[in-house]
Amino acid sequence: MTTVRTRGLDGIFRPRSVAVVGASRREGSIGRQVVANLIAGGFQGPVYPVNTRAEVVLSVPAFSQVSRIPGPVDLAVLVVPPDAVLKVAEQCGKKGVKGLVVITAGFREIGGVGIQREEKLRRIAERHGMRVIGPNCMGIVNTEPEFACNASFSATPPPVGSVAMVSQSGALGEAILADAAQAGIGVAMFASVGNRVDVTAADLVAYWGDDDKVKVILLYLETVGEPQEFLQVVRAVARKKPVIAVKSGRSDAGAQAASSHTGSIAGADVAADTLLQQCGVLRVDNFRDMFSLAQALLNQPPPRGRRMAVVTNAGGPGILATDALVALGMQMAAIAPATARALRKVLPPEASVHNPIDLIASADAARYRAALRIVTRDPEVDGLVVLFVSPIMIDAAAVAQAIVDETRELQKPVLACVMGRQRGDEAHAILQRAGIPVFRYPEDAAVTLRLMARRWRWLQRRPAKTPKFRVDKAAAARLFRTHRGRGWLPGAAAEAVLQAYGVPFAPSRRVQEPGDAVAAAHKVGFPVVLKAEAADLLHKSEHRAVRTGLRSGDEVFAAAQELLTRLKPRFGDVSLQVQRHADGHREVLLGMTRDVRYGPLYAAGLGGVQVELLRDVVVRIGPLDGQDPHEMFAGLKGAALLGAFRGSPPADLDVGVEVLLRIQQLVQDFPQIQEVEVNPFILAGKDRRSVAVDARLRVETR
Amino acid sequence: MTTVRTRGLDGIFRPRSVAVVGASRREGSIGRQVVANLIAGGFQGPVYPVNTRAEVVLSVPAFSQVSRIPGPVDLAVLVVPPDAVLKVAEQCGKKGVKGLVVITAGFREIGGVGIQREEKLRRIAERHGMRVIGPNCMGIVNTEPEFACNASFSATPPPVGSVAMVSQSGALGEAILADAAQAGIGVAMFASVGNRVDVTAADLVAYWGDDDKVKVILLYLETVGEPQEFLQVVRAVARKKPVIAVKSGRSDAGAQAASSHTGSIAGADVAADTLLQQCGVLRVDNFRDMFSLAQALLNQPPPRGRRMAVVTNAGGPGILATDALVALGMQMAAIAPATARALRKVLPPEASVHNPIDLIASADAARYRAALRIVTRDPEVDGLVVLFVSPIMIDAAAVAQAIVDETRELQKPVLACVMGRQRGDEAHAILQRAGIPVFRYPEDAAVTLRLMARRWRWLQRRPAKTPKFRVDKAAAARLFRTHRGRGWLPGAAAEAVLQAYGVPFAPSRRVQEPGDAVAAAHKVGFPVVLKAEAADLLHKSEHRAVRTGLRSGDEVFAAAQELLTRLKPRFGDVSLQVQRHADGHREVLLGMTRDVRYGPLYAAGLGGVQVELLRDVVVRIGPLDGQDPHEMFAGLKGAALLGAFRGSPPADLDVGVEVLLRIQQLVQDFPQIQEVEVNPFILAGKDRRSVAVDARLRVETR
Repeated sequence: MTTVRTRGLDGIFRPRSVAVVGASRREGSIGRQVVANLIAGGFQGPVYPVNTRAEVVLSVPAFSQVSRIPGPVDLAVLVVPPDAVLKVAEQCGKKGVKGLVVITAGFREIGGVGIQREEKLRRIAERHGMRVIGPNCMGIVNTEPEFACNASFSATPPPVGSVAMVSQSGALGEAILADAAQAGIGVAMFASVGNRVDVTAADLVAYWGDDDKVKVILLYLETVGEPQEFLQVVRAVARKKPVIAVKSGRSDAGAQAASSHTGSIAGADVAADTLLQQCGVLRVDNFRDMFSLAQALLNQPPPRGRRMAVVTNAGGPGILATDALVALGMQMAAIAPATARALRKVLPPEASVHNPIDLIASADAARYRAALRIVTRDPEVDGLVVLFVSPIMIDAAAVAQAIVDETRELQKPVLACVMGRQRGDEAHAILQRAGIPVFRYPEDAAVTLRLMARRWRWLQRRPAKTPKFRVDKAAAARLFRTHRGRGWLPGAAAEAVLQAYGVPFAPSRRVQEPGDAVAAAHKVGFPVVLKAEAADLLHKSEHRAVRTGLRSGDEVFAAAQELLTRLKPRFGDVSLQVQRHADGHREVLLGMTRDVRYGPLYAAGLGGVQVELLRDVVVRIGPLDGQDPHEMFAGLKGAALLGAFRGSPPADLDVGVEVLLRIQQLVQDFPQIQEVEVNPFILAGKDRRSVAVDARLRVETR
Repeated sequence: MTTVRTRGLDGIFRPRSVAVVGASRREGSIGRQVVANLIAGGFQGPVYPVNTRAEVVLSVPAFSQVSRIPGPVDLAVLVVPPDAVLKVAEQCGKKGVKGLVVITAGFREIGGVGIQREEKLRRIAERHGMRVIGPNCMGIVNTEPEFACNASFSATPPPVGSVAMVSQSGALGEAILADAAQAGIGVAMFASVGNRVDVTAADLVAYWGDDDKVKVILLYLETVGEPQEFLQVVRAVARKKPVIAVKSGRSDAGAQAASSHTGSIAGADVAADTLLQQCGVLRVDNFRDMFSLAQALLNQPPPRGRRMAVVTNAGGPGILATDALVALGMQMAAIAPATARALRKVLPPEASVHNPIDLIASADAARYRAALRIVTRDPEVDGLVVLFVSPIMIDAAAVAQAIVDETRELQKPVLACVMGRQRGDEAHAILQRAGIPVFRYPEDAAVTLRLMARRWRWLQRRPAKTPKFRVDKAAAARLFRTHRGRGWLPGAAAEAVLQAYGVPFAPSRRVQEPGDAVAAAHKVGFPVVLKAEAADLLHKSEHRAVRTGLRSGDEVFAAAQELLTRLKPRFGDVSLQVQRHADGHREVLLGMTRDVRYGPLYAAGLGGVQVELLRDVVVRIGPLDGQDPHEMFAGLKGAALLGAFRGSPPADLDVGVEVLLRIQQLVQDFPQIQEVEVNPFILAGKDRRSVAVDARLRVETR
């Protein structure tokens, strides 16, 4: 599919001719390096250096201006000073150039005049229908033989392969290309997108998604420009091929998550992280893990479950591998009895046929071969980690070959770890050539396997339909009209809006006087909770404005008097809410915060003290499907707190799921809602009624 | 100091003569490799191959038996078949050999006959006063020129240096030596200790602790043999020089920690982990981190705080470094205003003088030099991470040299990260030669810095005296006599024992009948909690045997009737405890489990639901000093739950500390106590009384 996002990108990655404006004869200059890379990269069409003075650059005839170039120009690479960029871009437009790669810096990143310059560049490109990579980037590379085009100033020519990479950082672009080459990763296409005046990472993902030569897509991201677009584009591509990302800026999240209000618990990185997860992008911590994972996914199927078998010739590495797998959420497969019996027959008595399967130090290629032939057939095993610590007298290369032979055609992932260097390098080479990812340390293999398994689970996920609830939209609309421009709605109004959308609340009455509180308590039924409410009283427990477990009219009267006497001097107009005590001790938070860039971010978390201090909240970007809330609850660190324990039945999560979806319907119907939080919502067991006890709702103030 | 632990180890590591029993002419055999390594390693004394048939091994005259060797033999390396080991060991003893390195396998690790064989070997060695390394090991190495002794079958000759290493795994020993060489780590001594029939890792740590040539000690551990000895020996050495460990077997902990009883929450690895922490051993996850940390600690001072400055020439890596530092608990230093002003003067306007300090892409050696000269003097900075992504036109080697020059003599740690490979290898070499740890990825630098900082904090720790409390030991002794052989003591008795040691409990009475419960409630004062007690009723809440918040005689009566009617048929002799309601909502657990190997393990954790499901418990091996319990509370993940929040004063932790130390005094006075758990203990604010609400105590049953 060619959409507006990918249209014209062939002009950049598959040009028939390239002009390098600002090409230079000067040794070590970027303008010279770009020309040199195009030539060395084997570009099939003409390269036109453009230089106001030089007549030849690197033996290629140069032109003083783009307009002087005789033939058509598909791609122009700009390496001119910043104040010359706009003029050159305009000339390129007039010449009919299809795409620009603007390497020049001095745009948005320097602020002020740079921002204006960037905006002008955008308008020139738009007017002439040119796509633009950059500015402030290091260029693009395509290694396809027929379109070979290294239009970058990278010092490392990338080896040909089937991985496509985009870097938001020019500086890291160079490092990524160099490290990829070191890791043996072959590159199909590469782009450093710089300031992204036009082409974004999402555009390139879409472009590469349709390109059969690209098998895996790697991203280095610092920010996500247009989250909702990114979500749609990347989610579709990730179904077809793996997308792996290093996203920097985690620690901003730390700072933001420290914000005391649960409503704003979704920090910048939390949002980015959930975005990547929802897209099916595999987020890794560093480039080492990124390349290992890329290599694994290029050559190995993802595991269809978490049950891993470890085959080793030494106990120590076997334990290290087990530790790492278990720590990362994998399981050690329970070897089938038939497998154990078969292993017993081919292994010496001192060997262990339990997982980790220890072939002991004397294991040679023949023993590895025999054991692997058995273990690979075990239906209880979803994937294998094969360890080898090369001892003296054993031919490491032969063992490596045995691993290759016995796992060929296997529909399960096989990762190897060869420790020790006695012929270890040769073993590494044999395994790598055969497409078996090979590591020096078992922990690294485990990290890769975990992410492979995560991809499998994501691919298995089937979205569920979002139910459409019958609600009283008109009632909610009336309430919003009444409280227009209020910011935080009064408690009673927030509650009424949510009730109109079917969110159940504990029965309550609102009163002004202690005597009325007693009457209200008798109406709602004892025991009751008494809460003081006032416009500026946002954190009730901080001001001891909540009294629980009141069992008689006398207790209610005394508590009401105390609250009013103490709080009125400070908060002025204080009223009282008398609420029926809600049974159940599982408190959860359900809410939404509207982000300027991400749109509605929905949150489900443990409520009460836990959410405040343990910050156990899962956030997802809307729209949620019917399956999302279930996964959000399951994703809580303290999910076990919601299960059955100590004689209590499990919490009725279905109610929590429904309430969150009802909140979504409310938020979709009323875009003026900026924030809504139902906290605590008391999740009872299936046999009792779950109810909200408190809620806040904020609308836009204009 | 020469203790029994280190006595005789010179005979193994600094022998004047070595016999290799089982020396062989066969290519690729261990018996040949050991002789070859001794010769190639430059052993200064005579090497005596012992072989029943061959007359010469590797040009060295061989002897048919140890007894035929003309001169004295300090060290004998045994590579004979397992059933010949005992005979040879006996011969060595008679010959006056001082130390044995038994490479031969086939001992305890194969069970049965192997266990007996190992026990016999131990007795032979003891009788002759020989120290033994192994059996089932790969040997030892000393690289000191005057005592050069490579008595191992390692294929990699270790480079000379000042790191000493011990491996519990023979197979990994080879890998560790090879990886150390690769990482540029010079080795002073190495030992693979195998089955540890005599010499343990702790013995070697003690030996190396006294050796000035050894600057850093590295351990690969699978189990800790004698925890209390290890604790004492290693803690003393770690004060003098860094000790770093990879300890495998983490995931066992996972399995054990899943045990439902909080008392046995201290799984095998939890105990090992706390042991290493208490010793000041820096535990790392893998060998890569071990070598990086070793190199850093060899050359750099540990940071005196967590405030780190990052100096970079590109934004992306700066963010990655910040992320990693913050994620690992470090802080980004707030650059002093004077520093920022000084930086402004030497940097271009687009540079950032805020941390991370971004010198931007055009930064050359001179700019790095100027910036580092300023930043290194900032008193707000405890350590530096200097990043460099080599761009075209900048001389990476010159930048590396600038980093070296400007941080020489600095009393703060400096770690570097050079990304990209354009002259990057040369830069790496320059930094490494100057003792500046250099990484390819900022995350790895952060991991190393964190552990360096941890070492600093551990060195700063000053133990506090354990107070001696006045207790009623006689009363406790009487109670233990009464309930001898009971296993779990009845609730009343457990409570009484703890009260005799000054643990405060909420006032309560124990009764049999509903009417008596009403009377008891009036005595202790409303509101009350009513609990059913019976011999087999261990998990009260599971059986709904606790009723809280009873405010009148009527409520107590009804609840008592219900409990007795429901529980008597199932548990037989059911009695009732009527307890005054304890104010306060911070529940903690305080307890001890006696481990067969580790001795008393003390635990402090969050109580109630939290401890059950979130498993937030800190364990320490006894004896605790007065400082330990404070650190235990501070180490809880949910420590914030015990602080001030939402209008509640902070929990009175001093009471918690005192109760744990009182429990310790009890446990020390009565070694028959196997397990004691006060849970929940309600920590009130300073102004109120903190009390225990429930407790369990188990004594040895013989």
